[in-house]
Amino acid sequence: MKLASLKGGRDGRLIVVSSDLAWYAEAENIVPTLQAALDDWDRYAPLLRNLSTDLEHGSIPRERFHEREAAAPLPRAYQWADGSAYVNHVALVRQARGAEVPESFWSDPLMYQGGSDDFLGPRDAIPLADEAWGCDLEAEVVVVTGDVAQGSGRDDALGAVRLIGLTNDVSLRNLIPAELAKGFGFFQSKPASTFSPVFVTPDALGDWWRDGKLHRPLIVELNGAPLGRADAGIDMTFDFGTLIAHAAKTRNLRAGTIIGSGTVSNRGADGGPGKPISEGGVGYSCLAEVRTVETILSGKPVTPFLRHGDTVRIWMEDERHRPVFGTIEQTVAAAG
Amino acid sequence: MKLASLKGGRDGRLIVVSSDLAWYAEAENIVPTLQAALDDWDRYAPLLRNLSTDLEHGSIPRERFHEREAAAPLPRAYQWADGSAYVNHVALVRQARGAEVPESFWSDPLMYQGGSDDFLGPRDAIPLADEAWGCDLEAEVVVVTGDVAQGSGRDDALGAVRLIGLTNDVSLRNLIPAELAKGFGFFQSKPASTFSPVFVTPDALGDWWRDGKLHRPLIVELNGAPLGRADAGIDMTFDFGTLIAHAAKTRNLRAGTIIGSGTVSNRGADGGPGKPISEGGVGYSCLAEVRTVETILSGKPVTPFLRHGDTVRIWMEDERHRPVFGTIEQTVAAAG
Repeated sequence: MKLASLKGGRDGRLIVVSSDLAWYAEAENIVPTLQAALDDWDRYAPLLRNLSTDLEHGSIPRERFHEREAAAPLPRAYQWADGSAYVNHVALVRQARGAEVPESFWSDPLMYQGGSDDFLGPRDAIPLADEAWGCDLEAEVVVVTGDVAQGSGRDDALGAVRLIGLTNDVSLRNLIPAELAKGFGFFQSKPASTFSPVFVTPDALGDWWRDGKLHRPLIVELNGAPLGRADAGIDMTFDFGTLIAHAAKTRNLRAGTIIGSGTVSNRGADGGPGKPISEGGVGYSCLAEVRTVETILSGKPVTPFLRHGDTVRIWMEDERHRPVFGTIEQTVAAAG
Repeated sequence: MKLASLKGGRDGRLIVVSSDLAWYAEAENIVPTLQAALDDWDRYAPLLRNLSTDLEHGSIPRERFHEREAAAPLPRAYQWADGSAYVNHVALVRQARGAEVPESFWSDPLMYQGGSDDFLGPRDAIPLADEAWGCDLEAEVVVVTGDVAQGSGRDDALGAVRLIGLTNDVSLRNLIPAELAKGFGFFQSKPASTFSPVFVTPDALGDWWRDGKLHRPLIVELNGAPLGRADAGIDMTFDFGTLIAHAAKTRNLRAGTIIGSGTVSNRGADGGPGKPISEGGVGYSCLAEVRTVETILSGKPVTPFLRHGDTVRIWMEDERHRPVFGTIEQTVAAAG
């Protein structure tokens, strides 16, 4: 089952989308918003599944699904917590600024609490007031959970996964060093995140969703040129069950919590940072990694951060090259 | 106008409470939840004000208000961002662990993104799985905002304040050093926060609310003994307008955002950390400050962090010693 929210109001209008993303059926007669569905999932999920089946069979009225009309599936959420499960990414970004990777990073997940009150839709512009802030994309996998009790273990946590999707977790790289130096984590350096047009139930992903990981390449383009196609199932040090359990160690997580994987990143064949796609590698899911590799190879970064007018595309394909979650496609624009 | 949410469902049931906190009237015929009221404040606030006036006049059916039946006014919220506006507190806590206070802390607000999906009601127990985590109270003032556009200045930000209340921003002190050392800020070290029984509109606070600060002593008791009565209007380096504008620098804030002051803390008459109430001072709004002062005076902390069975009370009084926001009263309990 694939779910999306058409733009409208603060929480959008819940729709069920066909597996090929061509059609949708209104879900409002069942439940008006995705948050409301997640709040009472056991009640609503079977009804939404029936609607999804009818939609696939073409046995109910349906409308054309246009991704540009979609808001984030949860236009606002009660929690957005983003891990850094691809420790390779963390190691690379730290290497560029000469910071060590503590040994504990390989056993204790990094996670930050993100803002969740104002997400961007998949085709919304990235509002950037100042190019000097160093705007970067970060392509990631996310899951949406049901209620998770404080102290839940990895298996229970994994069982609470309701939906899976993609995000562009925009970062303002040049604001990060000063902000992290203050010791309280990210705030201004993490503006609004963007989510894929649809979120998908685990069963609809078949064998791609296993062991708490999503085993597919995450495709990233910048201004129409290939940037990354790292496999989200590879080099993920902490699976989603472990990330969720980490988040729930000292408090309950409530339905609709979004947990992120962190920037997807694969090592190179030699265990190093990996090569660009143009050199036969799988490339990168953010510009910070590109710049790090450039710094390692030539002493300084060459690729600039995002500028007004740049366009980012992020998606994941099935075997027939059809987007599974739809496509995030955003142009960077002046704010306001 | 004073608003509260009776327990019930994920978002509670909105009620209007009389200014003496003795009575309430159901607001559900106007709008069912506080979040929904904040989502369309210009429409609902006048209707709720009329209800409040009728309640004060005794001209409508009313029920006895029992604070134990209240959830947090927003049982869950889309954003909870907590500043550290009383830099005196930051300086003290850092002094205890031998860390410097950078000069920038006096001009650039500290703020962390908190979890907002599962708040505690004012009489709910603090669920503490492990006393070794070093559970501390932190008594603070909070404001709830309407929509705030990215890049808003301090005055516009201050104009977006809809409601004012109190919080107990529970911290797990012994988890903080390792978590902050990882660089991503607080996560496990900040379990669910608790809020006062009622939130109050700025106009109902009269002259106590001015210059973006709440000018009243914040009273804290531990196990029935006075702990603190620091004035929230004194030594607040950053007013709420400045804190909100800080939060909105790179992104919009959506209606229902809760912004915290950080632990209220007053300097002593000599500019130092201030004395306990038993020695004629205004005391402290958290145990970390008590322990810091003990460390400065005697080389080591004496007061333990909270243990199962300990009870914390936090409130603020009017001239006639009546609680303005009701009373947070929580006992620390085993989790689960």
